[in-house]
Amino acid sequence: MDYEVFELGNVTLQAGLTLRSAKLAYKTFGQLNDAKNNVIIFPTHYSGRHTENEAIIGEGKGLDPTKYFIIIPNMFGNGLSSSPDNTPLPFDKARFPQITIYDNVMYQHQLIKEKFGIERIALVMGFSMGAQQAYHWGAMFPDMVERIMPICGSAKTSTHNFVFLEGVKAALTADDAWMDGWYENPPTKGLRAMARVWAGWALSQAFYREGYHLNGHSSLEDFLINSWEGSFLKHDANNLLTMLWTWQNGDISTNEKYNSDFVKALNGISAKAIVMPSETDLYFPMEDNLIETSHMPNAECRSIKSIFGHTAGGPAVGTDDALFIDHSIKELLAS
Amino acid sequence: MDYEVFELGNVTLQAGLTLRSAKLAYKTFGQLNDAKNNVIIFPTHYSGRHTENEAIIGEGKGLDPTKYFIIIPNMFGNGLSSSPDNTPLPFDKARFPQITIYDNVMYQHQLIKEKFGIERIALVMGFSMGAQQAYHWGAMFPDMVERIMPICGSAKTSTHNFVFLEGVKAALTADDAWMDGWYENPPTKGLRAMARVWAGWALSQAFYREGYHLNGHSSLEDFLINSWEGSFLKHDANNLLTMLWTWQNGDISTNEKYNSDFVKALNGISAKAIVMPSETDLYFPMEDNLIETSHMPNAECRSIKSIFGHTAGGPAVGTDDALFIDHSIKELLAS
Repeated sequence: MDYEVFELGNVTLQAGLTLRSAKLAYKTFGQLNDAKNNVIIFPTHYSGRHTENEAIIGEGKGLDPTKYFIIIPNMFGNGLSSSPDNTPLPFDKARFPQITIYDNVMYQHQLIKEKFGIERIALVMGFSMGAQQAYHWGAMFPDMVERIMPICGSAKTSTHNFVFLEGVKAALTADDAWMDGWYENPPTKGLRAMARVWAGWALSQAFYREGYHLNGHSSLEDFLINSWEGSFLKHDANNLLTMLWTWQNGDISTNEKYNSDFVKALNGISAKAIVMPSETDLYFPMEDNLIETSHMPNAECRSIKSIFGHTAGGPAVGTDDALFIDHSIKELLAS
Repeated sequence: MDYEVFELGNVTLQAGLTLRSAKLAYKTFGQLNDAKNNVIIFPTHYSGRHTENEAIIGEGKGLDPTKYFIIIPNMFGNGLSSSPDNTPLPFDKARFPQITIYDNVMYQHQLIKEKFGIERIALVMGFSMGAQQAYHWGAMFPDMVERIMPICGSAKTSTHNFVFLEGVKAALTADDAWMDGWYENPPTKGLRAMARVWAGWALSQAFYREGYHLNGHSSLEDFLINSWEGSFLKHDANNLLTMLWTWQNGDISTNEKYNSDFVKALNGISAKAIVMPSETDLYFPMEDNLIETSHMPNAECRSIKSIFGHTAGGPAVGTDDALFIDHSIKELLAS
């Protein structure tokens, strides 16, 4: 096991249920300095784990473990933190509770306070649902968070984004083998269908027009099976549906602090922010980030000029997009 | 029955099978003049029938039946022309043959030659798959077709568009009730899933951001069930899959005339063309039309500035988009 588990105890969730003996899996890189002011939090994205985020951590990079103490908390539902497939009955499988981004961030906060005694955070950054968590950190803990960098995400899940997720959910759950979540064997047909739907959304029209899907693949079908079906078949369907609900209900303002006043919540993000949409992202379009940053007191919207669609913002290594993001991390941390 | 049926006899299809006693359903408006030079062909779109196209025909409009003889041929697979659900065994249901856009246009050509003795066509126009048919008419019969107006379509189905269709197909066929096409009762769960996937693609991010889905609907869920599930549940699943295959394989150059030389086929469209993409269309993006028209000798790419996504080009009445299209039809016919 290459990660730690923080025992949260019994946690009451925003939607009303209590998750008993809740577990928050995380991994750290580097050392917390004596001033405890070198902290970076880098939450995971949909279906992602800390192992994916690790790719962009390294000496000389923006996320440099020789300078910073970097914490990657795993999102609830991702199979490492408490999830449908690792929670004992009666809250297992289809009975696993609905968890919000707010819940995730609140219990990440508990981790860093209780485990590490951290009071200041230099940066919270993340990709996609990780970006949603970064926005929530900024909105909920403005006195603690100095900087945020949400990449290919939003402070509030847009209606179109919600509909896109309705589509992938419907594809997965159309498979009778899903059995309303009570399957013993995975609903592979539904997982494959979900993967094929996602393959159109995650990349751009230009990505396919330029033939990038053929890099390392012998045909389009080879790409769809290997890159997409292969990825989704690794995941537990209930875990995917848990995180999907979390995503659909992402909104920095639906809590006691902001009472669904979205503009007030954006105003409340005092952290210095560089918000990085991809110009070809089909479900987190740049326009939403432009609207958001117009209400944030200390934010810049800096788009990634890429044809890789949503995936332009993923934790990749060596690509032009990754270099542009890494450069921006360094600039933000230096400011 | 508000339409005519032309008996094509036994037709050999591009993919190799023979469709016996093939039927082409069509409806005409207005009178063919003595010179037989007032002909407009207006093929149907995916899952559409002549009844939808009728909406934009009327005195004083671009498609004016007091001036023009307007023929709406129904696409194979749409349930009126030969389709999986109306063809006798052994070519019924899952055995219904694969039919290309080329096949559709070739047998529409047979109709207008044999039934009406038409040699000149003033305009072929269509929306979406109807646009694909308009492009094919221009490429296959340049000496016959004076003008074309493809709206929200393309001369060749792009790879991204193909992937989008893989997603909706996977959603439909994930339902066990589909039974590889041998169902007795419709696979309603799959049809509903397909509808939800489509709901994200057919409209734009801005459409939902501006709340247009709430026009006439009490909530997003009400919109998804009423407008989307309701529409798809009306259709036979095998019919939908037949037309989907037709769409995925749309390409004006995959025939004996052009031998897969796409640029040559575009060069071959001598008709005066106004090609009308919607600027927010997610699966027939404007960029593809710009590339196409750059190779067409007599074409203008005139975009529809709309937030209605793909649906901006549909046969609607009274909207700004519909008025813009109607104006362009008049202009094209007058030129």
